[in-house]
Amino acid sequence: MEEQFSVPRREVKLSNGEIVHLYTTEGPQGYDIKKGLPKLRAPWIERRKARGDKNFSQMHYARRGEITEEMRFVAIREGVSPEFVRDEVARGRAIIPANINHPESEPMIIGRNFLVKINANIGNSAISSSIEEEVEKMKWAIKWGADTVMDLSTGKNIHETRELILRNSPVPVGTVPIYQALEKVGGKVEKLDIEVFMDTLVEQAEQGVDYFTIHAGVLLRYIPLTSKRVTGIVSRGGSIMAKWCLIHHKENFLYTEFERICELMKKYDICFSLGDGLRPGSIADANDEAQFAELQTLGELTEIAWKHDVQVMIEGPGHIPMHLIKENVDKQMTICHEAPFYTLGPLVTDIAPGYDHIASAIGAAMIGWYGTAMLCYVTPKEHLGLPNKEDVKQGVIAYKIAAHAADLAKGHPGARNRDDALSRARFEFRWNDQFALSLDPETARSYHDETLPHEAAKEARFCSMCGPHFCSMKITQDVREYARKAGVSPEEAIQLGLKRKAEEFRELIKT
Amino acid sequence: MEEQFSVPRREVKLSNGEIVHLYTTEGPQGYDIKKGLPKLRAPWIERRKARGDKNFSQMHYARRGEITEEMRFVAIREGVSPEFVRDEVARGRAIIPANINHPESEPMIIGRNFLVKINANIGNSAISSSIEEEVEKMKWAIKWGADTVMDLSTGKNIHETRELILRNSPVPVGTVPIYQALEKVGGKVEKLDIEVFMDTLVEQAEQGVDYFTIHAGVLLRYIPLTSKRVTGIVSRGGSIMAKWCLIHHKENFLYTEFERICELMKKYDICFSLGDGLRPGSIADANDEAQFAELQTLGELTEIAWKHDVQVMIEGPGHIPMHLIKENVDKQMTICHEAPFYTLGPLVTDIAPGYDHIASAIGAAMIGWYGTAMLCYVTPKEHLGLPNKEDVKQGVIAYKIAAHAADLAKGHPGARNRDDALSRARFEFRWNDQFALSLDPETARSYHDETLPHEAAKEARFCSMCGPHFCSMKITQDVREYARKAGVSPEEAIQLGLKRKAEEFRELIKT
Repeated sequence: MEEQFSVPRREVKLSNGEIVHLYTTEGPQGYDIKKGLPKLRAPWIERRKARGDKNFSQMHYARRGEITEEMRFVAIREGVSPEFVRDEVARGRAIIPANINHPESEPMIIGRNFLVKINANIGNSAISSSIEEEVEKMKWAIKWGADTVMDLSTGKNIHETRELILRNSPVPVGTVPIYQALEKVGGKVEKLDIEVFMDTLVEQAEQGVDYFTIHAGVLLRYIPLTSKRVTGIVSRGGSIMAKWCLIHHKENFLYTEFERICELMKKYDICFSLGDGLRPGSIADANDEAQFAELQTLGELTEIAWKHDVQVMIEGPGHIPMHLIKENVDKQMTICHEAPFYTLGPLVTDIAPGYDHIASAIGAAMIGWYGTAMLCYVTPKEHLGLPNKEDVKQGVIAYKIAAHAADLAKGHPGARNRDDALSRARFEFRWNDQFALSLDPETARSYHDETLPHEAAKEARFCSMCGPHFCSMKITQDVREYARKAGVSPEEAIQLGLKRKAEEFRELIKT
Repeated sequence: MEEQFSVPRREVKLSNGEIVHLYTTEGPQGYDIKKGLPKLRAPWIERRKARGDKNFSQMHYARRGEITEEMRFVAIREGVSPEFVRDEVARGRAIIPANINHPESEPMIIGRNFLVKINANIGNSAISSSIEEEVEKMKWAIKWGADTVMDLSTGKNIHETRELILRNSPVPVGTVPIYQALEKVGGKVEKLDIEVFMDTLVEQAEQGVDYFTIHAGVLLRYIPLTSKRVTGIVSRGGSIMAKWCLIHHKENFLYTEFERICELMKKYDICFSLGDGLRPGSIADANDEAQFAELQTLGELTEIAWKHDVQVMIEGPGHIPMHLIKENVDKQMTICHEAPFYTLGPLVTDIAPGYDHIASAIGAAMIGWYGTAMLCYVTPKEHLGLPNKEDVKQGVIAYKIAAHAADLAKGHPGARNRDDALSRARFEFRWNDQFALSLDPETARSYHDETLPHEAAKEARFCSMCGPHFCSMKITQDVREYARKAGVSPEEAIQLGLKRKAEEFRELIKT
């Protein structure tokens, strides 16, 4: 019994009658934030509960050969077959983060044989911002194209903030549960233990968090490897766990109790995002022993999670110069058996505070091309402060560029359609179409309006770069026009124009 | 007889007593724009004129085994030996653009064995802007780090604008002379010829232009190759020459009269920037037959220019998806015998109007790593309008990031010093040092101030990202502090702390 559902996509109608369909993340519009979004997945989940399922993970179904509604949904979204989706999920090469308690989410997939995805971090800190502000940031991030959001709140009202975000989020939501666990023990790292951590996981699992960043690879014996680094440990979760290990002189409880965590994950279908607590925080520390030692452990943990049919992705760095980026992907693929890679940038230089969205978009585009499945954005405020709404937009757009560039370089089917449609519009001076196909139509239009504000300029066969007297693109257009009239190909037209009708041709293309 | 001269560099004094020296392009400060900059190179050039030299090109001297003052100057600036500079210039692998009539310029070098350089385009159009505005843009561009500027003015007052820019520019200035030649014939492409072009070259050579973009590779037989492209011909100069060829059914006069142009170039020591008039203007047209056919001709012209000891660089695209970038550099190096490559971006996607400084910084960083010597910036206004001052800054900074990332990836000696100094400052919470070492200290500081405006926060051992309660970097610092007190290495400290003094260690690092 096939259920009908409509998969979100944005339809762009061009002035020449063409229609271009674009992937969209912004979800259903016009719902009251207090009531939340419609629960698209509720009936699917209900059926599974009704028949007595115990392991709700998409990987579990995939491995049993079952194509879920979520898989069919993403297959349409990505333009591939449902069977291909099932196979990639079964193989562990892709994940569909979809907590059974987050039925509002529109299923999406993260894996290197699909479109490269981006994540936007939001969340308040001890210093600033309100609950509504964070929900606004989430809606703003997905408007511009964030495929998932992570709520990294550390301040007050963690629970309430997350609740409102989840009920209004059509995209998967991730968290770093150790942050809240730390709040629960009054900020005293030494008081953390597996019990308070499990309590936190249950609380967040019940709310519907789709993936958890868990720093289970920060082992006691790896900590000395970070001591000579220029920037030591820079991951907040990694640092918390390192401190705990040192204080207690014990192995990381997230590692020792990992199977207990797996048991919980599968009941809700929450994905692991295995945290890279020892990621490099500077160019100097890139690809060092500490980083790759932890990666080995993440590979080991991937196998354990997969034993439970729990979905896994692996977090990656950070700060890496360009020539060392590829090694990260190659190692991750081998060590972690092609589980999806999810990297923060990487930044390709340390000298650009205030512009780290750009410094990291360079690394992100490259690592995406090499096979990273999801790119965690970096905003202009990275290293300096918490992002405001405008920073979130700047970060998301820089990362949409990186992800799309990666799709193009990977030769992802259909990725080039949007570029080609936009370039045709550009060449034919269809300014409004050019804006409509842009990542940020409003900004593109306003930049054009700065020098040529009149509506007539949107039809003009010139722009402010060259001015009206000589347009660089006009010559090719004249040739095409001549070809059309003569009923020949543009290439033939040039030959014809040159050889047989020189005078007429000259007159046509003359200034 | 060695002349003493001081080579520009910016000294950054850090709060810990360290001094970091940075390459600087901003030139001497505080001079009246109407009087222009001091003529640093005048005595060097005078001596050469006095002894009756006829060919003033740096390549000419280099090939004769003479190390010029310009070579010694750039050797100090780049931290290499003068003999190495001479050898690279003699070999044609690097150029020092230095018109004898632009004595105000501080010599700099463009070549893949030196720091990657960036160019900023300025210039008014038929539509907008005043002379003073353009000089202001030039000064603004070099303040942020532009290594050369191109004056692409096409409107009124071309001559006067260029004059004021040259007299105030400490960096080499490039132009596209065909733009002015076209103005001289009233905008009628068909009226262009080698005479009016040579007149234009002489006029600009006398003023002191350091390099000329000349589209001598747009051959008649290549034009049909562009007819089926998505975006045809997009280079303004390329388009002018294509139109001229079609109207007259003749070969490009820049190609047929190339040696005549060479004769002029060497009298002034002006460098060729051989224009890529058939560069792709969209992802769809990247690496096509037209583009690479022209490149072959540029290789041929390089040999002719070198026969005259005229310095040459080769312009490159444009719009190229990531996976096709390397082929551009590989082909250019082989075909053009390693003459320096000078590329516009490339943009790695077409869908980002309004953000093309980012879309192109990705490609620029990569192509710089692969061996491109100079990157022509792209501003956020690309494809939409003319850049204003803020756009110029955004473009320059994006390209400083790309160029520096390329230097890091190439393992350029000393390139990492700035990253390391900044990262150490970051790790030690020396906020003011971190700002001072940034590409844009003002913006970095203002972003930090947004959440933590008090001066005390510049000393604070935390920031707004994590808040005061738990800083991710503190754990490593605690360990180092413990090590310092115990007189052991941080690595030993961890072992010691764990094994022998567990209690004391615990107390120290506890929250």
